[in-house]
Amino acid sequence: MSGGRAGPGGSIGAGGAAYDVVDLIRAKRDGAALPGDAVAWLIDSYTHGRVADEQMAAYLMAVVWRGMTDEELDRWTAAMIASGDRLDLTGLTRPTVDKHSTGGVGDKVSLILTPLVAACGAAVPQLSGRGLGHTGGTLDKMEAIPGWRADLDAARIRAVLADVGGVICAAGPGLVPADRRLYALRDVTGTVESIPLIASSIMSKKIAEGTSALVLDVKVGTGAFMTSLDDAHELARTMVRLGTRAGVRTEALLTAMDAPLGRTAGNGPEVAEAVATLRGDGPADLVEITVALARAMLDLVGLGAAAPDPAQVLASGAAYPVWRAMVTAQGGDPDAALPAPAFTRVVPAPASGYLTRLDARAVGVAAWRLGAGRARKEDPVSPSAGLRWFAAVGEEVRAGAPLFELHSDDEVTFPRALAALDGAVTISTTPPAAAPLVLAHVR
Amino acid sequence: MSGGRAGPGGSIGAGGAAYDVVDLIRAKRDGAALPGDAVAWLIDSYTHGRVADEQMAAYLMAVVWRGMTDEELDRWTAAMIASGDRLDLTGLTRPTVDKHSTGGVGDKVSLILTPLVAACGAAVPQLSGRGLGHTGGTLDKMEAIPGWRADLDAARIRAVLADVGGVICAAGPGLVPADRRLYALRDVTGTVESIPLIASSIMSKKIAEGTSALVLDVKVGTGAFMTSLDDAHELARTMVRLGTRAGVRTEALLTAMDAPLGRTAGNGPEVAEAVATLRGDGPADLVEITVALARAMLDLVGLGAAAPDPAQVLASGAAYPVWRAMVTAQGGDPDAALPAPAFTRVVPAPASGYLTRLDARAVGVAAWRLGAGRARKEDPVSPSAGLRWFAAVGEEVRAGAPLFELHSDDEVTFPRALAALDGAVTISTTPPAAAPLVLAHVR
Repeated sequence: MSGGRAGPGGSIGAGGAAYDVVDLIRAKRDGAALPGDAVAWLIDSYTHGRVADEQMAAYLMAVVWRGMTDEELDRWTAAMIASGDRLDLTGLTRPTVDKHSTGGVGDKVSLILTPLVAACGAAVPQLSGRGLGHTGGTLDKMEAIPGWRADLDAARIRAVLADVGGVICAAGPGLVPADRRLYALRDVTGTVESIPLIASSIMSKKIAEGTSALVLDVKVGTGAFMTSLDDAHELARTMVRLGTRAGVRTEALLTAMDAPLGRTAGNGPEVAEAVATLRGDGPADLVEITVALARAMLDLVGLGAAAPDPAQVLASGAAYPVWRAMVTAQGGDPDAALPAPAFTRVVPAPASGYLTRLDARAVGVAAWRLGAGRARKEDPVSPSAGLRWFAAVGEEVRAGAPLFELHSDDEVTFPRALAALDGAVTISTTPPAAAPLVLAHVR
Repeated sequence: MSGGRAGPGGSIGAGGAAYDVVDLIRAKRDGAALPGDAVAWLIDSYTHGRVADEQMAAYLMAVVWRGMTDEELDRWTAAMIASGDRLDLTGLTRPTVDKHSTGGVGDKVSLILTPLVAACGAAVPQLSGRGLGHTGGTLDKMEAIPGWRADLDAARIRAVLADVGGVICAAGPGLVPADRRLYALRDVTGTVESIPLIASSIMSKKIAEGTSALVLDVKVGTGAFMTSLDDAHELARTMVRLGTRAGVRTEALLTAMDAPLGRTAGNGPEVAEAVATLRGDGPADLVEITVALARAMLDLVGLGAAAPDPAQVLASGAAYPVWRAMVTAQGGDPDAALPAPAFTRVVPAPASGYLTRLDARAVGVAAWRLGAGRARKEDPVSPSAGLRWFAAVGEEVRAGAPLFELHSDDEVTFPRALAALDGAVTISTTPPAAAPLVLAHVR
């Protein structure tokens, strides 16, 4: 028959423990929690090619179904970290604190927050990734700056942190290689959407980068990965617990991502907007979220009372010199012009009234289709493509006046970008009720 | 973030329909039923290597979790059949009817049933497989006969059916190749245990072999794949429905598999026992089940009233000449001695009394460890290894008298085989209550 498996096909793990991977898959499938040794064996065996992609894919789908206990998740994350190197950031004169966002549209907060918190007295090791899909990546944005390089070795990261106070750079290939393999597998096997798998992917990298404290920006809304507040809460609680148990002081803000942040989406356009904000001229929503995160970060490392107020630092332009030093330290020219798009197209407002809805996901997809994002991780992105909008939610628009300006290197992208924006805005005769941006603080 | 997938990475199926396999995995994961086109596309794409093993593994685990609707299962099975050839058995003068067992220990029923039902007037195309694990395979048993060959082409299968009335042979590589790939994948990914996947694996092959009618022997008990009566019922109902909707008259018997059938387990030993049964000298349990299945098969093709009574045919030895003709037609010598084991060991009964329990699984594992079964599908099996027992459940045993006789080509196998038998029997002072062998008839 198509029946039971044959026999004990056990394998020997690096740690000496012997497990049969099919037994582990079946145990998880049937709802059991794996012992810590087995979790470590599984990750180690997968990283070293002794467990096949199809076996890990089945295991991951069983995790989507059955979840993980706290204990399993701690061990899973620890095993991911153990697959590579850890950065040692101890011994700096300033306390280290980092921020991670689960990804939103127009989310250029890291570009502003890193020099801002450094200007307030902490050291910010912002190890980042590239984007995939409709939410952009911090490194993609920074790479719009002529000359800027993302790759730094560990010694250089420490040196820039000591000298400048903030660094935005790539998490090198030695940091959590297990996540690279697991994430690529999850992406093609429909196993991305699992809170323990998302939490371990994010937190393994943040724990391995050596920061002493971490504030998470968990986005909720149509433009975010988490569209329900309950799911976002659970993800936040899971990550805060994971970080805390691993010795990293961790808190999370839940923030709204129904509308895109600021007035731009796209790599170069967002750099320009970040620079304007650092010079004291930022849009209100972007300033509000950046300052809230900065305060949480400073509080977490005990600088809340002693440090200058981030709102004042931002408004005064005092963080801008730190930005310039950061860019220069990585080969970038802070005075160079950003790449200009070959084509622009203006979309007028279809009616007069108050903008009551601007759909973040639609804007993100439009920017992506214009060339700002990638579909596959080996795809290039354009430094100039993207879009800006001339009104934020709550503001008035006039029929026929410009509502969007699209930027692209290739005119052929416009029709599909415009299609994404179809139905993305609502214009009403009455203004919308004010909605908070920061929804909750999870400690 | 470790967030949503990028974009539409659609592929074009052979049938012209375009699907993104990740979308299909996610839909099944989230509990949706796939449209029929998508199911066909998925099987076709996997068979042709356009869907990767890790993607199908994730899909299969989602099926273990979410199941399939009847409609999905019909399409899934039809797509599996469409991956290869179908046998055409129409135009024979006798009606065709086959039997399939979900696998038990000591289950040599096919060897007896095929010539028996042929002797009663039907044509029996028994296309079989090799064994994996502790339940033996029909072809492994037949191959213990010197000279016998399992591989016949379609023309030869028809010819033997026309001449002899029964044929036991291999399902060739052209018959449901999708099942071969899927089964190998399920075996290493913990996705064997799913009623729709088991049902489609069995029924795709039986439908493709071209039989007009089919009786399923669904085993329930410690030695069977299904240990719960509820699960066995559901599997039986699922397969009966699948077969019926595909145009094959299908019924199922649920039969007990807590104790092994007959008095032997192992390839050559089971052939010898089948021959003795065909000559009118079979053990009561084996005769009972064989006759019940034969009656169901004859009834299903409308020969129930017209045909001779299978019980009388078996007792009279009238089916034995059909067996001899079947063996001869495939190159076997029905008079040749079966291979003898190099080593035997006798295990005495530990106490006097009634044998009230003989654990089927323990006996199956012992036979497997003695060399009768394989752990991997490329392993060889021994024609002589196995064991016999000298009492059936309900019979009396005497302390010190032989209870088991173990056969092996290699003495080194004895300790682990004996360990499997440790605790396998219960001997009591009072006889056990009689338990039925045929538990239910599912139509």
